[in-house]
Amino acid sequence: MSLDPAALVQRYLDTVVSGSAEDVAALYAEDATLEDPVGGGEVHIGRQAIAGFYAMTANAEVSTELLQLRTGGHEAAFAFAITVTMGDTKIRVEPIEVMNFNSAGEITSMKAYWGPSDMKQL
Amino acid sequence: MSLDPAALVQRYLDTVVSGSAEDVAALYAEDATLEDPVGGGEVHIGRQAIAGFYAMTANAEVSTELLQLRTGGHEAAFAFAITVTMGDTKIRVEPIEVMNFNSAGEITSMKAYWGPSDMKQL
Repeated sequence: MSLDPAALVQRYLDTVVSGSAEDVAALYAEDATLEDPVGGGEVHIGRQAIAGFYAMTANAEVSTELLQLRTGGHEAAFAFAITVTMGDTKIRVEPIEVMNFNSAGEITSMKAYWGPSDMKQL
Repeated sequence: MSLDPAALVQRYLDTVVSGSAEDVAALYAEDATLEDPVGGGEVHIGRQAIAGFYAMTANAEVSTELLQLRTGGHEAAFAFAITVTMGDTKIRVEPIEVMNFNSAGEITSMKAYWGPSDMKQL
């Protein structure tokens, strides 16, 4: 099977918008790792921990927009915007993410690079 | 020592423009790795191999421009443009790069994500 990281990234961004935390976690390999933000001191290991991470925005309205994508082999690096609306609060963050995929197309690692200066209140 | 990945990235982009291949390689740790492009099938290991990689553009006129930078911990992800002029040929590539640094500020790994569609002839 030839892997299409571009399609896998778009599926991820779409699932973040329309899927449950479990739906997003299901895109990850069972033993995947997630670090968001990089340098934040916490790495989520395994699909269950990853579902817990995405559950944080379960009650929010989320939209995503792919801004720049670079792929190579089983990897992708991309800049995107995510807008999260919770009640009266609406924030937009523009991370650069790096993803690795296994040959089944599952995400084996995700790292999101961003800091306070990449987040703005709308 | 507190590390400033933003300053290290800018020093790297400046050295790529004005330094020799050895100058750029000296920004890397002795046992660093370099993969450019990711998925290209070749990983350069060690400062000497890395100097060989940068020697490819030793006779070219090079300019660089930082487009987007995200940092976290000892890591940085950034989009930039590099323009390489060799004789009558002038090309511009816009990769996304990911760098890891050690506590001395040396680059321990560099990965450049880009493909043919991110390169244009000027």
